[in-house]
Amino acid sequence: MEEWNEDVLHEECGVFGVYKDKDAAFLTYYGLHALQHRGQEGAGIVTSDGMHMKIRKRRGLVSEVFHEEHLKDLQGIHAIGHVRYATAGGSELENVQPLYAKLLKDGFAVCHNGQIINAHNLRKKLEAEGSIFQGSSDSEIILHLIQKANGTFLEKIKEAFSQIEGAFAVLVLTKDSLYAIRDAKGLRPLSFASLNEGVCVSSETCAFQVTNADYIDDVAPGEIIGFTPKGMIRTHYTTACDHHMCAMEYVYFSRPDSELDGINVHNARKRSGMIMAKRDKDIQADIVVGVPDSSTSAAIGYAEQSRIPFELGLIKNRYVGRTFIKPTQEQRERGVKMKLSAVRSIVADKNIVLIDDSIVRGTTSKRIIQLLKEAGAHQVHVRIASPPICFPCIYGVDTSSYEELISARMNVDELCAYLGADSLRFLDIHDMKEAFHTEKLCCACFNGAYVTDLYDYQSIIERKPKK
Amino acid sequence: MEEWNEDVLHEECGVFGVYKDKDAAFLTYYGLHALQHRGQEGAGIVTSDGMHMKIRKRRGLVSEVFHEEHLKDLQGIHAIGHVRYATAGGSELENVQPLYAKLLKDGFAVCHNGQIINAHNLRKKLEAEGSIFQGSSDSEIILHLIQKANGTFLEKIKEAFSQIEGAFAVLVLTKDSLYAIRDAKGLRPLSFASLNEGVCVSSETCAFQVTNADYIDDVAPGEIIGFTPKGMIRTHYTTACDHHMCAMEYVYFSRPDSELDGINVHNARKRSGMIMAKRDKDIQADIVVGVPDSSTSAAIGYAEQSRIPFELGLIKNRYVGRTFIKPTQEQRERGVKMKLSAVRSIVADKNIVLIDDSIVRGTTSKRIIQLLKEAGAHQVHVRIASPPICFPCIYGVDTSSYEELISARMNVDELCAYLGADSLRFLDIHDMKEAFHTEKLCCACFNGAYVTDLYDYQSIIERKPKK
Amino acid sequence: MEEWNEDVLHEECGVFGVYKDKDAAFLTYYGLHALQHRGQEGAGIVTSDGMHMKIRKRRGLVSEVFHEEHLKDLQGIHAIGHVRYATAGGSELENVQPLYAKLLKDGFAVCHNGQIINAHNLRKKLEAEGSIFQGSSDSEIILHLIQKANGTFLEKIKEAFSQIEGAFAVLVLTKDSLYAIRDAKGLRPLSFASLNEGVCVSSETCAFQVTNADYIDDVAPGEIIGFTPKGMIRTHYTTACDHHMCAMEYVYFSRPDSELDGINVHNARKRSGMIMAKRDKDIQADIVVGVPDSSTSAAIGYAEQSRIPFELGLIKNRYVGRTFIKPTQEQRERGVKMKLSAVRSIVADKNIVLIDDSIVRGTTSKRIIQLLKEAGAHQVHVRIASPPICFPCIYGVDTSSYEELISARMNVDELCAYLGADSLRFLDIHDMKEAFHTEKLCCACFNGAYVTDLYDYQSIIERKPKK
Amino acid sequence: MEEWNEDVLHEECGVFGVYKDKDAAFLTYYGLHALQHRGQEGAGIVTSDGMHMKIRKRRGLVSEVFHEEHLKDLQGIHAIGHVRYATAGGSELENVQPLYAKLLKDGFAVCHNGQIINAHNLRKKLEAEGSIFQGSSDSEIILHLIQKANGTFLEKIKEAFSQIEGAFAVLVLTKDSLYAIRDAKGLRPLSFASLNEGVCVSSETCAFQVTNADYIDDVAPGEIIGFTPKGMIRTHYTTACDHHMCAMEYVYFSRPDSELDGINVHNARKRSGMIMAKRDKDIQADIVVGVPDSSTSAAIGYAEQSRIPFELGLIKNRYVGRTFIKPTQEQRERGVKMKLSAVRSIVADKNIVLIDDSIVRGTTSKRIIQLLKEAGAHQVHVRIASPPICFPCIYGVDTSSYEELISARMNVDELCAYLGADSLRFLDIHDMKEAFHTEKLCCACFNGAYVTDLYDYQSIIERKPKK
Repeated sequence: MEEWNEDVLHEECGVFGVYKDKDAAFLTYYGLHALQHRGQEGAGIVTSDGMHMKIRKRRGLVSEVFHEEHLKDLQGIHAIGHVRYATAGGSELENVQPLYAKLLKDGFAVCHNGQIINAHNLRKKLEAEGSIFQGSSDSEIILHLIQKANGTFLEKIKEAFSQIEGAFAVLVLTKDSLYAIRDAKGLRPLSFASLNEGVCVSSETCAFQVTNADYIDDVAPGEIIGFTPKGMIRTHYTTACDHHMCAMEYVYFSRPDSELDGINVHNARKRSGMIMAKRDKDIQADIVVGVPDSSTSAAIGYAEQSRIPFELGLIKNRYVGRTFIKPTQEQRERGVKMKLSAVRSIVADKNIVLIDDSIVRGTTSKRIIQLLKEAGAHQVHVRIASPPICFPCIYGVDTSSYEELISARMNVDELCAYLGADSLRFLDIHDMKEAFHTEKLCCACFNGAYVTDLYDYQSIIERKPKK
Repeated sequence: MEEWNEDVLHEECGVFGVYKDKDAAFLTYYGLHALQHRGQEGAGIVTSDGMHMKIRKRRGLVSEVFHEEHLKDLQGIHAIGHVRYATAGGSELENVQPLYAKLLKDGFAVCHNGQIINAHNLRKKLEAEGSIFQGSSDSEIILHLIQKANGTFLEKIKEAFSQIEGAFAVLVLTKDSLYAIRDAKGLRPLSFASLNEGVCVSSETCAFQVTNADYIDDVAPGEIIGFTPKGMIRTHYTTACDHHMCAMEYVYFSRPDSELDGINVHNARKRSGMIMAKRDKDIQADIVVGVPDSSTSAAIGYAEQSRIPFELGLIKNRYVGRTFIKPTQEQRERGVKMKLSAVRSIVADKNIVLIDDSIVRGTTSKRIIQLLKEAGAHQVHVRIASPPICFPCIYGVDTSSYEELISARMNVDELCAYLGADSLRFLDIHDMKEAFHTEKLCCACFNGAYVTDLYDYQSIIERKPKK
Repeated sequence: MEEWNEDVLHEECGVFGVYKDKDAAFLTYYGLHALQHRGQEGAGIVTSDGMHMKIRKRRGLVSEVFHEEHLKDLQGIHAIGHVRYATAGGSELENVQPLYAKLLKDGFAVCHNGQIINAHNLRKKLEAEGSIFQGSSDSEIILHLIQKANGTFLEKIKEAFSQIEGAFAVLVLTKDSLYAIRDAKGLRPLSFASLNEGVCVSSETCAFQVTNADYIDDVAPGEIIGFTPKGMIRTHYTTACDHHMCAMEYVYFSRPDSELDGINVHNARKRSGMIMAKRDKDIQADIVVGVPDSSTSAAIGYAEQSRIPFELGLIKNRYVGRTFIKPTQEQRERGVKMKLSAVRSIVADKNIVLIDDSIVRGTTSKRIIQLLKEAGAHQVHVRIASPPICFPCIYGVDTSSYEELISARMNVDELCAYLGADSLRFLDIHDMKEAFHTEKLCCACFNGAYVTDLYDYQSIIERKPKK
Repeated sequence: MEEWNEDVLHEECGVFGVYKDKDAAFLTYYGLHALQHRGQEGAGIVTSDGMHMKIRKRRGLVSEVFHEEHLKDLQGIHAIGHVRYATAGGSELENVQPLYAKLLKDGFAVCHNGQIINAHNLRKKLEAEGSIFQGSSDSEIILHLIQKANGTFLEKIKEAFSQIEGAFAVLVLTKDSLYAIRDAKGLRPLSFASLNEGVCVSSETCAFQVTNADYIDDVAPGEIIGFTPKGMIRTHYTTACDHHMCAMEYVYFSRPDSELDGINVHNARKRSGMIMAKRDKDIQADIVVGVPDSSTSAAIGYAEQSRIPFELGLIKNRYVGRTFIKPTQEQRERGVKMKLSAVRSIVADKNIVLIDDSIVRGTTSKRIIQLLKEAGAHQVHVRIASPPICFPCIYGVDTSSYEELISARMNVDELCAYLGADSLRFLDIHDMKEAFHTEKLCCACFNGAYVTDLYDYQSIIERKPKK
């Protein structure tokens, strides 16, 4: 599975916040930049100097949205920011975050990575009570629920989130406090770290390195952590907590240098490659090739375990950008060729173990295999470092229907034939958990074991096709 | 040595041409996109439909300069294009190529990758005769020499190039013919390949894959190949030919999936890593880490030979772009951190062999080593997959003075101490030639053995500092 | 008083709507373009095809915000649009209109030209009840009040507007109906006209010509007109109606080809010039010069009545745009020179009657007089086609404090001396009403007779300086 | 004849230069801004600080091409600049001026307003001698001729211009001198004025007001004026001089506040209106209306002479810009409506004298008359303040063929009927000369009396259609 492609999983967003640092906007900029892989369609930052809040958000990459003068303009010692991947139909500016409630007396801003499962119900109720929505994003619901709740701001947050079910990492900024909230099942990651005198919070730990922050802890499932003038407060908005980190965070989304719940992503992927190699006792191959960049870790692991040399059989063009001209329909295979090249002198006449992290639609995998064969590869044995994706994700990953999931329609043999591979094997769930060193995973997209109620998604999930 | 950095070698440009294909502009776009690593500051294409020529060129990446409507507008069956890396002070649009001589009756266009050594003399002579220059680029000289020469267009080209000395790959397009010309020492690469009914020419063979072209041959040193209505013509404009491909093309510039003079770049780099491993009989290390992306091939070779595991100890941020905000002076080390992360869980407490392709100023290497040590690395043994760069390049690589070359001022021990490395070794010239499987190299930047007369560069080169 | 200047009155916005026409978006574009003089900082259009609504809004001129593809994209048969002049601190995109409430089942959009006098009270109440605001614009209040009201949509509008006091022309669009609402004092203009089968509504009648619409009537003070699937409905949301059109609409804001409450603006201005000429029985002048473009009508009237020739003594540069570089402080007088030139061969040695529509700060008038004198004018007799502005406007005109109003601090003799004029006279209120052929005017900025309660503005108005 | 329309005459360009002033770039910016009406498609400035030259040029308005930082960057005490109207097919950046010859030792830049009649011959000769052209603009010829000439720079200019025939105003800047050159027939205007210690040169005198410069003199036909370190030098490059200022400069191109050869343009136009009124002894009309803005002067003159009131019967929309969406074919009449409105309450039931400066294709005039009639005008008597244009201009005005000239095909009666006017009269040549107070006019477009040899234009002119 490879980037810049329709045939790819997309997650929604990353969040980063800073509490009490004179360079809050700059640090948030660096942090968001380190999280850019989690969303490239929009970015925004809200800052507070303790009295007043300022906001800037736009469509585009972090480096496009913010120039130096913008960051200087975003004075403040607290900040929260967001990078957005927009799902279909939702790329309007109204949906770019942070969302900011501008109130007569103070105001507050929200950054939200994830999906609210009971959004439809909540929105219906809010609209009936007179609330107005500017965009189509679920995240506005959070603003309204907080604003309508009672008590201190912390109590308002508790009341609001006690009504929300789903997968999310949320940051809330007021003029003098920053709150970090994680969903009750721990589906999305959220960690915090110490700065000089302050704190920063991030979707992934990889952002702490560039901000020179020292990792402290993860926000726990169902937890609210408030960084306030009175100090840090840790509390829960629900007791119905459980721990099921999204397995695809390990498989594909997170950067290899991040630690998820204390486990390094590169190492988890590398071990998945090693386990696949152990299962492949029989294989006769000359080289191991990973689909760059997401499958390199697993390929290294497979190579190290199998003692088959790791090779750069596929080269990625670093300059594929968003404005790129798509090849015409009849030259569809050129699409992959512009992003990836097979290196003839490496792959010609070789038996290849091709490692990919996952298969969604299968179209990209099919073309990569074709690319290798055209370059003279003798055999291509495909090894997928995760189980077949057979169920739609309702927790924020952009696979909302069975139609897009080839493994929902084909078994492994059929798929192997479709891909033109010489053999095809997936990592099974058991091995995946072993590789990732954790049982605390959501595997719903592999086995249909959703970790929350389904609400309006019930009907979608029931439409499972027969193979 | 890693991209997006001042501390990096830059070459000037790549060229790509198509003769006789109804999709000439689109194919040239794809070809230039595959050559984007050779220059990111400007791009342009000239086409001819056999009667009229059209041009579009702008500053920016290929995908920024050309949108679909532009390519549709560039009707034609022949095309030449260019990607530019601008040397200091030369990023004005006047210097973006192709350069086009618009004449009353027909006209012609030139794309030029390289450096003309006797440019100053030629320009002085041309100006004295009344020629006018619009920009500062050497390439305009070629236009003037052709226009002033006599005879058929091929004879004009011969006469023009017989006066030019330097390192270059040049494409010339008239309304009905395309000419490919390479310098007499073969310093810059230039190859051609067959299309359906036509031909394409490229600085590097990596561009042939995306255009579905089949490699035929390299343009020979001192050769002119004309693709004309009368067929292909191969001739030489000089007999003083020799073959000295720029060694840095193998070391750094070319894409790993290109073949230079028939030798695959990845394999050449990998063998350089293997030889370094053989020389390192004594080393006690836990992992091999390459500076991404340029040193990955050599690192894989070192790992394979030494049986020390290859690891992703450094992760590159894929979203570092040109509009990026530079960290302030006092946070200079953040510059490297935004582009590279050291993976703590991989490198902590490890003895590391760090492979880099080359060292120019040394500042980036120093920071990378610091990064690894901050992440807990125990020892960092630096291995450079090329010899020390001690002499300025006069053939188009952007190292014009001794001041920029740390190896011109320090010996290996001093440099090791400066870098904070635990040991430092370079590949020597003899081993490099063995690794690259060729003696036909220009090694002037390593040993001062320039392969042409020096002209005005004589005085610069004589200023060599004492160590 | 002349455009593109800080020393100028600004009003807030113009609105235009179309009900039932297949070219709704294009017609609204043309209509907004005709209203461009009412606001140049932002523009937007919402359309409905009867089922779904679409929106586009941006900062910039109408012709910058909308290109052909945008209008094609805004499918629909109904549309409302807005041009915005942003008051200080409010140019953020959040405040660009239309404002759109995106609801699960249907939604609605609002365009608002004017000022809500009791905005602070309403907003405080709404926030206390849990409503959230995205921007600082008063207009959001309208959305919330409608959404929180009960009954049919028309009943909701009635309930909402019965709570709002101020000066406004408002358009509301639902998926199948368009509502036009005018404030209870008739301070802002709003008219409607028939299209082929539909209707259009506009802040000014000048927009009906380009859309080929035939004027029907004005919306009455306090009236709601609904264009609905059931036909047109005319009703009032209050009985406390009265008619006081803002006098400055005649004096400065409206286009000369508009009819306000049935009175043509050019003719009203021309008559004000004629009356001034009648009052000037004694004057000995050679030519009449109007400050272009706003004072041309009054100057023509003065010339016609006095039989002193009308002359182009001042020429306006048509290309003064928003990105224009401001002259440095010490060259402040160049600011006026870039916009206006005095024609030496016309004005030299002449006694001039200089007609201007109004004086705000007085700085521009002072420089224009200086310009004429530098060009050789002998005498400059200034005649202002409106009374002195001595009170801040609270109804949407951008003169919120006494400090900005020179006539609040100086009497006519002092001001004449300050300006360097040879004589200075203003039109008095009585003559103005005679010239405009109406008594139904708000003259608060001239005489302090505000036509509504003052709410939070009470304290500002009480701060009147002594002369 | 009204702006922003295809049915309009276009001239090519304006030039402005500054010699010896520390604010050379800023003053040139202000000057070009005052000349913006002469060309809106591109702008550029070259400066020299006495040693080095800098250039910036782009497509767009002066205020779009130059922001403050650009002008600060253009250090220097001398400058020349250019605003360009691009003729068909010539809007490429290559043609935007100044053109700059970058030479090893010094260089020079050229700004050129006009047309070289023998361009084709000169270019053919230059190309045969080896000169290369980058664009299609005639102006490059000047660069080449200067560069190829011999002697001092002044001698080179003399030699160059002695070969050039046509209509032009040219500025040449070297590092330490500025030269102003005017064509031998005085077809294009060029004047100079004193600054504090320096001098400025301009196509029109209207630019002197904003730069606080005092008019000194016009450059004479065939004259070269050099501003050099040795002082001012006035000399001629030819003795075959004569004086025939383009009549259309008075009629349409120049700004009313400019003086051409000492005659104020507004006054010349006003007198042409007065003479037309004298000829119209019989007319029974209620109001005089001028097509804004170009015909206002003549309309004022007509009104003053005839004692029929001058009225604002047509209002111009000030915001018509270049990105404006063109109405569809079937709504063609809307094109005029977006730019002009007829004021119903002024024109209804009136007999109108409509003054226009000239008629080219006749399509705009036809629509304006229609507009007035739709608004209720009873009769429309059209008076054109210049003779019928029956011949193409070869001196830089964009009417290169008889097809575009309705008066070349129709006599006055036929044209009156075509336009739907109630009567139509033109100013005759004799009256025009009387109105303009000069006999020194080129009237070739009216009577075919071209003031130079025709060269390649001979054949075009001979194709005159029969009426």
